[in-house]
Amino acid sequence: MEDSVNLAEKLALFEEHWSPRTVAEFNGHDVMVVKVEGEFNWHAHPDTDDFFLVLKGQIDIELRDRTVTLSAGEMFIVPRGVEHRPIAREEAHLLLIEPTGTPNTGDPDTAAKRQIV
Amino acid sequence: MEDSVNLAEKLALFEEHWSPRTVAEFNGHDVMVVKVEGEFNWHAHPDTDDFFLVLKGQIDIELRDRTVTLSAGEMFIVPRGVEHRPIAREEAHLLLIEPTGTPNTGDPDTAAKRQIV
Repeated sequence: MEDSVNLAEKLALFEEHWSPRTVAEFNGHDVMVVKVEGEFNWHAHPDTDDFFLVLKGQIDIELRDRTVTLSAGEMFIVPRGVEHRPIAREEAHLLLIEPTGTPNTGDPDTAAKRQIV
Repeated sequence: MEDSVNLAEKLALFEEHWSPRTVAEFNGHDVMVVKVEGEFNWHAHPDTDDFFLVLKGQIDIELRDRTVTLSAGEMFIVPRGVEHRPIAREEAHLLLIEPTGTPNTGDPDTAAKRQIV
C-alpha cells in the first residue's frame, strides 16, 4: 500500500510544463500533478470527463462558447466530448484526474507518456 | 454545463461534520467537500477505492496496521476493502472522491444522505 502523497513535494520533482506525473491511482483513474504555462492544444476526450483542480496560480480553460477561469482552490470538470484548451499566462500547478490511459492531448500519437512519481 | 467550483465557498455553506456535500460529478464519481472533527467509525468499502485530500487542517486515517497522518495539500487513497477510521483532533476540511452512491460509513443504513451543493 502506498503512503500519503504530498502534492507540493511531488511538484518539486520536475520542471517541465504540460507533462503530468501520476502520483496515485484509484478506481481506474490516475491522479496527476502537472505544471502548466502557455497554451495547450484544443482537444476533447470523447468518452471521459476531465477533472481539473488548481493548486497554485490561475488558468483559463477555453471552451468553444466561453472561458472558465480557475484560481487556486477552484475546480472544473470538462465533460466528455467537450472541446477545450487550457491556457496559463504564468506557471500554474494543477491536480488532474482522468481514467488511466487517457491521452492528455486527446490523441494517443501526441500524448505525454505516462510517468509515475 | 456547470460552472467552476470554488471549494472554500462550498465549504462555507454548511457547518455539520461528517456530512459530505457533492460539488461535482465525473466518470461515475462524486466529488465532495466535507468538514470533519472527532472520530468517525471503522469501516471499509469492499469494491471502491476512497480518495482523500486535505484542504485545511490535519487528519489521521487509522488503518488496522498503522496510521496515516495527512496535512493540507496531502492525499491518500484507501484501497478497496481496507478498514479505516478517519480522526480529526480539530476541524479539518477534506476533498473526497468516491463512486456515486458509495455509503460514507460503509453501510447504506447509516450512511449520510447524498447532498448536492
